[in-house]
Amino acid sequence: MTYCVALNLKDGLVLASDSRTNAGIDHIATFKKLHRFEVEGERVIFMQSAGNLATTQSVISLIEQRIRQSDHHILNTASLFEVAEMVGHTVRSVIERDSGQNQGVNFNCNMLISGQIRDEAPRLFHVYPEGNFIEAGVDTPYFQIGESKYGKPILDRVIHHETTLEKGLQCALISMDSTLRSNLSVGLPLDALIYRNGQLKTDEIYRIDENNTQFQQLRQTWSEGIKNLFDSLPFFVVGSNQKDG
Amino acid sequence: MTYCVALNLKDGLVLASDSRTNAGIDHIATFKKLHRFEVEGERVIFMQSAGNLATTQSVISLIEQRIRQSDHHILNTASLFEVAEMVGHTVRSVIERDSGQNQGVNFNCNMLISGQIRDEAPRLFHVYPEGNFIEAGVDTPYFQIGESKYGKPILDRVIHHETTLEKGLQCALISMDSTLRSNLSVGLPLDALIYRNGQLKTDEIYRIDENNTQFQQLRQTWSEGIKNLFDSLPFFVVGSNQKDG
Repeated sequence: MTYCVALNLKDGLVLASDSRTNAGIDHIATFKKLHRFEVEGERVIFMQSAGNLATTQSVISLIEQRIRQSDHHILNTASLFEVAEMVGHTVRSVIERDSGQNQGVNFNCNMLISGQIRDEAPRLFHVYPEGNFIEAGVDTPYFQIGESKYGKPILDRVIHHETTLEKGLQCALISMDSTLRSNLSVGLPLDALIYRNGQLKTDEIYRIDENNTQFQQLRQTWSEGIKNLFDSLPFFVVGSNQKDG
Repeated sequence: MTYCVALNLKDGLVLASDSRTNAGIDHIATFKKLHRFEVEGERVIFMQSAGNLATTQSVISLIEQRIRQSDHHILNTASLFEVAEMVGHTVRSVIERDSGQNQGVNFNCNMLISGQIRDEAPRLFHVYPEGNFIEAGVDTPYFQIGESKYGKPILDRVIHHETTLEKGLQCALISMDSTLRSNLSVGLPLDALIYRNGQLKTDEIYRIDENNTQFQQLRQTWSEGIKNLFDSLPFFVVGSNQKDG
């Protein structure tokens, strides 16, 4: 399983992905699920993937091959919308190719495509296995793919379009932490990245493993804070706890 | 959709259920999902249900009918384990009955069976659609059925066997609140109940609707507390936010 989250905020993008894949509980491995493509000063494109590993690796490889072999590829499109179209087309054709002879196997994948091209504002798309896609907006500034439910409540409580990139990153990592605690098939290390609007180049992807003291501290502060908050809640009276209150 | 949670703690049981059912987004209705059976001073039995409404209503009706018509029923078993067996048998037979002619329709339901019989300690079982079941223990003192993922992280962070009933109820309601916020098909009113070990009679089920000021206050305190906690988190440094920190 996988969990990836991407936020499109007023100041730019925040991305976080785990890196665990499994095919049955005895075959667990680490694969990068956050990919980036860059033409410095002109465009940055990020791709996060969840689903069948063979499908997502094929999709990334075909996109890279197209850059080398074709005149029209993700590094010369006029907009990120066109990139999402190309990725959607590739996703659909890979799933169709592999599904042909193999009914009953799930070849699906979902992808998050984000980035910035020239003077377009940063954009964020969710590409479905069917190849179609939706775009994040001011009202819904984030998308999740993979094992998304455990980490959704904290995003719903905190994230809005005006959230700063720093706070967005903290929230994405708390959302990751909640998922890590509740689902063993989502695991460290994590990849995280902040992209500031207008930057048009990417920073190194920041990798968080179990020895990362910043992440340990964040998890611990959050966990203790939740417990303290919980202890401070008003007493709730129903039936048989009424007489003891 | 439905969300039900039950905790088996050292001092007794905490139960909470929503009451929304839907068959498509244009057919949303309110049905009780928390049922109780009682022989005062001797036994209390609680049943929470999630899944196909026709199935769960049939199961409850058949259990009630058996009490009236049979010599051996849930109100004269020696243990709650036997109650779980009876419910499991009923669940399996209803699903088999309805599935026979109707392939492709989902008739499944999951049930939580909890309560206390005489001097047995309170017990909690999760009955699967297949009719088999598991029991909660000291290491895993809670079960959820239905739309369970949104509300799981807070339970994982807070609940252990030693948690008091009052704190358990608060946590169950926070877990409900997280689910209500993230999934529209889980909705108010909620049913909640505390059962204290040895009580051997049930309190009124406490119903929480949108006008319940206690619940409003709990939600608000929690929501503001989360935001304050979030604002107090240590700054997290990756790549491009390093220079601005």
